[in-house]
Amino acid sequence: MKKIKKLLVANRGEIALRIMRTAKEMGISTVAVYSEADRLSPHVKFADESVCLGPPPSNQSYLLGDKIIEVCQQLEIDAIHPGYGFLSENAVFAQKVKDAGLIFIGPSPESIEVMGSKLAAKQAVAKYNIPLVPGTEEAISDLEAAKAKANEIGYPILIKASAGGGGKGMRIVESEGEFEEQMQRAVSEAQSAFGDGAVFIEKYITSPRHIEIQVLGDQHGNLVYLFERECSIQRRHQKVIEEAPSAVVSPEMRKAMGEAAVGVAKACGYYGAGTVEFIVDDQLNFYFLEMNTRLQVEHPVTEMITGKDLVQEQIKIAEGHPLSFQQEDLKIHGHSIEIRVYAEDPKNNFLPDIGKLQTYKRPQGPGIRVDDGFEEGMEIPIYYDPMIAKLITHGENRQDAIAKMIRAINEYRITGIQTTLDFCRFALQHEAFVSGQFDTKFVDRYFKPELLEPVFTEEEKEILVALAVTFFEKADQKINPIQAINSAPSTNWKNRLI
Amino acid sequence: MKKIKKLLVANRGEIALRIMRTAKEMGISTVAVYSEADRLSPHVKFADESVCLGPPPSNQSYLLGDKIIEVCQQLEIDAIHPGYGFLSENAVFAQKVKDAGLIFIGPSPESIEVMGSKLAAKQAVAKYNIPLVPGTEEAISDLEAAKAKANEIGYPILIKASAGGGGKGMRIVESEGEFEEQMQRAVSEAQSAFGDGAVFIEKYITSPRHIEIQVLGDQHGNLVYLFERECSIQRRHQKVIEEAPSAVVSPEMRKAMGEAAVGVAKACGYYGAGTVEFIVDDQLNFYFLEMNTRLQVEHPVTEMITGKDLVQEQIKIAEGHPLSFQQEDLKIHGHSIEIRVYAEDPKNNFLPDIGKLQTYKRPQGPGIRVDDGFEEGMEIPIYYDPMIAKLITHGENRQDAIAKMIRAINEYRITGIQTTLDFCRFALQHEAFVSGQFDTKFVDRYFKPELLEPVFTEEEKEILVALAVTFFEKADQKINPIQAINSAPSTNWKNRLI
Repeated sequence: MKKIKKLLVANRGEIALRIMRTAKEMGISTVAVYSEADRLSPHVKFADESVCLGPPPSNQSYLLGDKIIEVCQQLEIDAIHPGYGFLSENAVFAQKVKDAGLIFIGPSPESIEVMGSKLAAKQAVAKYNIPLVPGTEEAISDLEAAKAKANEIGYPILIKASAGGGGKGMRIVESEGEFEEQMQRAVSEAQSAFGDGAVFIEKYITSPRHIEIQVLGDQHGNLVYLFERECSIQRRHQKVIEEAPSAVVSPEMRKAMGEAAVGVAKACGYYGAGTVEFIVDDQLNFYFLEMNTRLQVEHPVTEMITGKDLVQEQIKIAEGHPLSFQQEDLKIHGHSIEIRVYAEDPKNNFLPDIGKLQTYKRPQGPGIRVDDGFEEGMEIPIYYDPMIAKLITHGENRQDAIAKMIRAINEYRITGIQTTLDFCRFALQHEAFVSGQFDTKFVDRYFKPELLEPVFTEEEKEILVALAVTFFEKADQKINPIQAINSAPSTNWKNRLI
Repeated sequence: MKKIKKLLVANRGEIALRIMRTAKEMGISTVAVYSEADRLSPHVKFADESVCLGPPPSNQSYLLGDKIIEVCQQLEIDAIHPGYGFLSENAVFAQKVKDAGLIFIGPSPESIEVMGSKLAAKQAVAKYNIPLVPGTEEAISDLEAAKAKANEIGYPILIKASAGGGGKGMRIVESEGEFEEQMQRAVSEAQSAFGDGAVFIEKYITSPRHIEIQVLGDQHGNLVYLFERECSIQRRHQKVIEEAPSAVVSPEMRKAMGEAAVGVAKACGYYGAGTVEFIVDDQLNFYFLEMNTRLQVEHPVTEMITGKDLVQEQIKIAEGHPLSFQQEDLKIHGHSIEIRVYAEDPKNNFLPDIGKLQTYKRPQGPGIRVDDGFEEGMEIPIYYDPMIAKLITHGENRQDAIAKMIRAINEYRITGIQTTLDFCRFALQHEAFVSGQFDTKFVDRYFKPELLEPVFTEEEKEILVALAVTFFEKADQKINPIQAINSAPSTNWKNRLI
């Protein structure tokens, strides 16, 4: 058991701030690292000490593991929290941290390594009876054998190149009649693209949901699950809305998934906070996808419904403490939703929209949490993930959490850049979301840019302000324009105007 | 059952905003009223519509009940939420609202009236077996009868003038030997001050705690208690730190107090949200003091530990819905603390310190809620209660909630006016608070202005900045002054500097 006194957070932005807040509450001194692009960031100001690692991009600063370890030795730091991304799932770095006599706040290098390889992960979990997407265990090139396997699995089937990636050589086969033709095409595509015609075949999940389980384990072999997070609303294959609990997971399914997740964690001797990702089909069968051996972006929804501070738990585990609670102590309180506020233009295929936060006013009030790493007037740097903030709500039930989120989105004031706020409002109000009947194809299926409410141009705003002023002057009230707009009866356009 | 579509909030500042946030989440249109002094306030900007009532002070604006009812009729508003203070406990106003065919979000005028009179309240609760501070039920002037009563109650005894107020004619008697002399003095003081020598005598509680119980009742006779709030940390006889649950209340005591509070509510046919205040002695005996027939300033700590939105419950009750839960459904989750951030100078006897919020940056992160009604750059008006904000934390346990609060206080940036933040940090770190062993005399007993950490003058700040810059230039680092300060090793002075 070693008390951590001084912690370096090897990350930036909202997650660096979020980790340092908990560290301060635990009486731990904090050290920020930063790139030249982030020198004025809140995470740097918040820390007790800070060190510039170098210029952007990340491989000249945030990814310089050796330099970070050097800083730790110079400043008598005893632990490193890697956050997510950057060095957080780098087994070599985790080993170096350990070898330097420092505490890595995360699992062992061995756990990271096993779960970092899809094949090694599958092999590791094999004896734990974890459901995997049905398919061939080894690459196959024989047509008849493949067809027999496909019939065994049941259609639709996905054929994918063994050496492939990025969708190349991938074929969806709807029925047995198409199989031969599609198999031949996949093999020849794979042959010409990768020089290797071997393919895997597996069950194609038509309407997949992405549901993951948070686990926590200590260094004494205790493991618990902190229930699920529903992360099916994605754009560009990346999560944008997450919630806990899921609208479709029953208590029995929760228990089965939770126990499967604990099995996955056991399979790699896991300790710390980790997330086991599952793909879920429209019959609510779930299959293990992978394990993320770090804190997730969407961890706050789990914190809201369990009352646990996951960063505090990570730190206590790293210090060697046993978990202070057991599975049966964990209960779900209410419902929590997180939206990721990205500097992206939903009207332009969610492409990053970089610029200056001209106005930046956060929503407030009961059940609202904003985790961010920016202040009004700051530039969103082009070098990093364009996430501005995570907006999290917590309500008594799902309906409350949705209502709070829509209110909070309407209260958020961001000008100077396009954001995903309008898209998230659209999604949260969509009947598929409200009913809980959605999958990872939500955006493709339902979203069209023209469905977003119109945003006013500067000229339109001026006209509206002038109209409002005239209206209220006529009404013989002395009032300023903002006041006039606020007093105007229609609210639909107001929220977007001021 | 009448669905409220449009709600007028007859209040200002944080509580007006807090109420309107919930109303918006419930799909209810909001109307703000304001005085000329508050025309640029966030609560006015937040509302869908707003109406100026007149100039400050309150008797020319916020207290104009008839005008407010008129506004409701003009704008087709169907309900009024009075918040706290102003018209919230005015039975005549509540009756007029009702007579005008509007919904008053609060109890019946009759309940307000009964609980508004100490005597009527005591008479009402008499048959419900509610513990009252032992004492004479009627005014007494006979020396021997008084002495006999005093012996029956037990010393120390408080003698107070029947016609009195403001401490005049009040005497504390420590033992029987002093009784005659003190009684004679009290009677003659009362005689000369009020022309009436009659006095009450009651038990003097040496080390009182103020603990109150939140109740909720619907219009169908269902009543529940939402546990206690500990409000003993006061300055100038007004609460400044509140928490739930109390550090000294056991489950058995909680149940007994809760059932007594429900008894008080029953005694006056109560519905809506109300608070039953008790005085608790050092033996943890509790005695009914009074009932507040409205939402309390400190209601958020109850929301945090129960997961209930009290304003939402008030609105549903006013619409005629039965409570959607029963006593046994209510559980305490974690611990919550609220501090009131007042524009007051703790070094100058907590006198209001009015001025402009030059800097105003709120703390953020998990477990932090800020309910306020100001923005950076705004003036704190002299006409109203000088509360800037309520800072609320929620942790897994009391220690966590305290640690979060101290972190949040350190993160709060307010310049331009003196606040109670430093005082609150002092109180939260004091061993009496940490151990839970404190009473309403905490400030008198432990607080001296010189115990607050020093605040830097502008000149001192300049010198420190210059030193920091020099230091880092010597160290051959290119860095701006804020950066230099942030990177400097000492953190004690940093938090107060930037």
